[in-house]
Amino acid sequence: MSAYKAPVRDMEFIFNDVLQVQNSEILGYQDLDNEFLKSILNEAGKICSDILFPLNQVGDSQGCSLENGIVRTPEGFKEAFNKIREDGWTTIDCDTEYGGQGLPYILGTAIGEMMASSNMAFGMYHGLTHGAYSAIHAHGTDQQKSKYLPNLVTCEWTGTMNLTEPQCGTDLGLIRTKAEPQSDGTYKITGQKIFISAGDHDLSENIIHLVLAKIPGGPEGIKGISMFIVPKILVKEDGSLGERNKLSVGKLEDKMGIHGNSTCVMNYDGATGFLIGDEHKGMRAMFTMMNEARLGVGLQGYSQAEVAFQNATAYSKDRLQGRNFLGRSNNESPADPIIVHPDIRRSLMDQKSFVEGARAFTFWGAQLIDATSRSDDHSANGLISLLTPVVKGFLTDKGFEMTVQAQQIFGGHGYIEEWGMSQYVRDARIAMIYEGANGIQALDLVGRKLPQDNGKYILEFFALIAKFLKENGSQGENFQSDFLEPLSKAISDLQAAGEYFLKNGQKNPLNVLAGSNDFMHLFGYVCLGYMWARMAKSALNCLSSDTDDAAFYEAKLKTGRYYMLRHLPATSLHLARIRSGSECVMALEPDGF
Amino acid sequence: MSAYKAPVRDMEFIFNDVLQVQNSEILGYQDLDNEFLKSILNEAGKICSDILFPLNQVGDSQGCSLENGIVRTPEGFKEAFNKIREDGWTTIDCDTEYGGQGLPYILGTAIGEMMASSNMAFGMYHGLTHGAYSAIHAHGTDQQKSKYLPNLVTCEWTGTMNLTEPQCGTDLGLIRTKAEPQSDGTYKITGQKIFISAGDHDLSENIIHLVLAKIPGGPEGIKGISMFIVPKILVKEDGSLGERNKLSVGKLEDKMGIHGNSTCVMNYDGATGFLIGDEHKGMRAMFTMMNEARLGVGLQGYSQAEVAFQNATAYSKDRLQGRNFLGRSNNESPADPIIVHPDIRRSLMDQKSFVEGARAFTFWGAQLIDATSRSDDHSANGLISLLTPVVKGFLTDKGFEMTVQAQQIFGGHGYIEEWGMSQYVRDARIAMIYEGANGIQALDLVGRKLPQDNGKYILEFFALIAKFLKENGSQGENFQSDFLEPLSKAISDLQAAGEYFLKNGQKNPLNVLAGSNDFMHLFGYVCLGYMWARMAKSALNCLSSDTDDAAFYEAKLKTGRYYMLRHLPATSLHLARIRSGSECVMALEPDGF
Repeated sequence: MSAYKAPVRDMEFIFNDVLQVQNSEILGYQDLDNEFLKSILNEAGKICSDILFPLNQVGDSQGCSLENGIVRTPEGFKEAFNKIREDGWTTIDCDTEYGGQGLPYILGTAIGEMMASSNMAFGMYHGLTHGAYSAIHAHGTDQQKSKYLPNLVTCEWTGTMNLTEPQCGTDLGLIRTKAEPQSDGTYKITGQKIFISAGDHDLSENIIHLVLAKIPGGPEGIKGISMFIVPKILVKEDGSLGERNKLSVGKLEDKMGIHGNSTCVMNYDGATGFLIGDEHKGMRAMFTMMNEARLGVGLQGYSQAEVAFQNATAYSKDRLQGRNFLGRSNNESPADPIIVHPDIRRSLMDQKSFVEGARAFTFWGAQLIDATSRSDDHSANGLISLLTPVVKGFLTDKGFEMTVQAQQIFGGHGYIEEWGMSQYVRDARIAMIYEGANGIQALDLVGRKLPQDNGKYILEFFALIAKFLKENGSQGENFQSDFLEPLSKAISDLQAAGEYFLKNGQKNPLNVLAGSNDFMHLFGYVCLGYMWARMAKSALNCLSSDTDDAAFYEAKLKTGRYYMLRHLPATSLHLARIRSGSECVMALEPDGF
Repeated sequence: MSAYKAPVRDMEFIFNDVLQVQNSEILGYQDLDNEFLKSILNEAGKICSDILFPLNQVGDSQGCSLENGIVRTPEGFKEAFNKIREDGWTTIDCDTEYGGQGLPYILGTAIGEMMASSNMAFGMYHGLTHGAYSAIHAHGTDQQKSKYLPNLVTCEWTGTMNLTEPQCGTDLGLIRTKAEPQSDGTYKITGQKIFISAGDHDLSENIIHLVLAKIPGGPEGIKGISMFIVPKILVKEDGSLGERNKLSVGKLEDKMGIHGNSTCVMNYDGATGFLIGDEHKGMRAMFTMMNEARLGVGLQGYSQAEVAFQNATAYSKDRLQGRNFLGRSNNESPADPIIVHPDIRRSLMDQKSFVEGARAFTFWGAQLIDATSRSDDHSANGLISLLTPVVKGFLTDKGFEMTVQAQQIFGGHGYIEEWGMSQYVRDARIAMIYEGANGIQALDLVGRKLPQDNGKYILEFFALIAKFLKENGSQGENFQSDFLEPLSKAISDLQAAGEYFLKNGQKNPLNVLAGSNDFMHLFGYVCLGYMWARMAKSALNCLSSDTDDAAFYEAKLKTGRYYMLRHLPATSLHLARIRSGSECVMALEPDGF
């Protein structure tokens, strides 16, 4: 009934025309020629449509189960995971030294979107493994790398991140899990971790847990946190599997969504752990992976909107209800397809213009990450650090909203599980919460990223937009009025918000904190507006050259105009809220609630 | 873990100080003296907290089951329903002639909110019965009334509404269910109905289905629809139960939420039906109940926000995470309660200011319905007809959003079913869909209600606000700047939107339809802004007289100011979207999606 088709054409447009990857100076980007790109995206899309997507509802309805301490994934997950593994889809952007293909992260991002759209719960088993790979790759010793990475690259082994405990989520300084040094250089890990995605399952022969814990006698709070490799099954010197480590699944959580992914309570009872990186420097190790991890969650947000939008579109063309106000579209049927109704079209355009803008924004973010890691571009590093909370917070908040809009198009059928729309809403919901709840993203943005290096990166962002506005002023009148003027208005709202913070934050820092959520959203609208202006420019360029795909580029322009007219004006609302300051927010004391 | 406490103090404030029910000239309102009101609200609140609320999660996790054609409700539902019935809570606002207590609808509304907050799925069994009661009361013959009403009033029998069929939801003209006239004056009803809430269950000895069907040979489309009483078990002349009617449950739906309410596919296989009202006039009969039914759904929207807000507030006082930016609040603990953080406070204020505004708006709507039905007030009737789609559409859209915000406060725990927050989100979601999806509410608003009687009712609404602004201009400077000025700005945005429709709708009606959703939201903000201005005025009055509850009134003023500063500016955004017209909405042809 439901379906998923990978948006390969749209991805090609972003790679080739908008980001122009082949002209980029980033190492490895010159390999992304269109034939290669197209074939790899098509192939990935096929697997996602044919294998992962049909398992999405299966995963949701069956969920995972815990029997005698062993977690079983839904029917078909194991076979599909084997297939993904065998075809090498897990190795795309990993280091060739450890069996990876060494392709750019941006390509992994495009494939990651497809996996998330087609089966988010399934895609997480690989996504978390990739996170563990990155952490060990960045902070492990050579010996640790050669011991763990090859099997993580191929997903013969999978990975997890263990941060949260019952008494500590955001505030990692409260961690109680202990790591006691042993005479052989290992540590005994003892404590309970909760909300561990893919904490246990039957998809791989071993699971490499990365665990945050405190070494007794270290500094208080987050300065005393260290990171450990804690394998489910200990790995012998020769690389073969040894004895079972002292860790177990305490419970499998019953969640609102992502039922196909096992969310575990993990108990560590003196498990053997291996320090990764320096003692007490676990937080620094975490932070180096954060841009990538958070971009991956922002991607989940819009990926659910994408698949929900595809199905809402199909339904709106199929469902006959009411008549076209301007005259019958469908004389042979008793009613017209609901896509003729303006409010349905409004909703579809909301979704379409969001998803396409979000995709371009995320791919641009991936390009900045590649520029950072492959070409050592400091300015790109600063920019992506600034934008990361926006990608994560804005795209998951809006992505969720769009799944709700897509579900609404189905009327009563949207509420029935069988139709699949409820799952997109329920699955999308987690992306607003994990990997730093969106309130924390907003705090990170205004509290750390804005003031970083005296505001250097936000000023660079402003300069980037100013340059774009200046350079493209002569693109023709419509481009000016349809794209540049709204973008110019939006960026001035963002600047005004920044000025408000600068002026009123010194008097009272609560004036900044009370506006953090609105600032994150304001910034998100500006970023998508900027991406739409870039896409419109590219579409106009393509139209002015010899093209046999004019309809695609014209649709881009129409969708972009919609975004600028209907979404972007939200910047004024967010600015007004920010300017109202903290007084009204804090006026009622906690006892007054 | 979770809890619900009926907001009796807030309800009293609305009854006594804002709507001043005792000074109202509506028949029966003089009986609502404060002692009586308080005792009945407290008593209802106690039952909702102690009996209905503890069954809410039970209902969600167990759901209903269909075994051998019989639907079973979750454990404890039957006993609770008996209790509600025995204590007379179903009879509050029903006609004394049929065993009701004859109290105003506004009182039933307040109790309805408590039932919906504490257990929405449970409350629907009574709510739908009340709808069937109203339909038969308004359109039945004396014989039908005496046969069915007494048992519906006491909920010995329950009721349902059967409108939707697989091929027709919104577009009831497509109904295929047939009603063939029999020689004895009855009809044989044949067809399939879907999404029938409380379609079958074990809570009552009989179920009275109200079914829309077509009598062969009647007019095409919705002009040929008639309404029938189709009892599950036929009722004999002496009122005792006779034989089983020819109808059955085809399927129980697996839904996103309201699991405790049985949503059935109902098959009518030549079932005996009794015409209610005139032949082919079924739609008219439906419409007379619509204001009440839709107000009841708007109430569900904010009732879920209320209970979610209560639990989010409790959690935010309990959960220790991070430190107060202005200095530790809680030196003895390792962290401060998260309610000290500005972004948590922002979210709680969003919720609180919405819920309290929504409650006042809904109770005012109930007062208008009472004025219509008890005092034959034509102007009240026009006004509530205009406001009904706003109550339903705006309060359910925003109510859902607020449950999502409340869930977010719980971080990861919000996503775990055990904590109960997911259920509020999932339950609230249906209110945006049923009883006319919100897109249909918006269409009803701009397409029927605005132009009705040459715009008479919207002009009366404008006049009402203008009068309020004029009469209260001298309330003191802060009231002027905090409440009247923002309200004045908001109402001018609404007027500007109306003018845009008037001017551009004649050229192209799509300019109205493409702005319908934004207009409904714009209108909703204005209504809640108006209610907040009224509440603030009442709070100031109470504060200026001798009161021992100053903290309550001061909290009202603070919450109201928050609404005016942070919510109300959204009117400008909706106006901007409306003014962008239909071109950008319709630019992309259906094939382009």
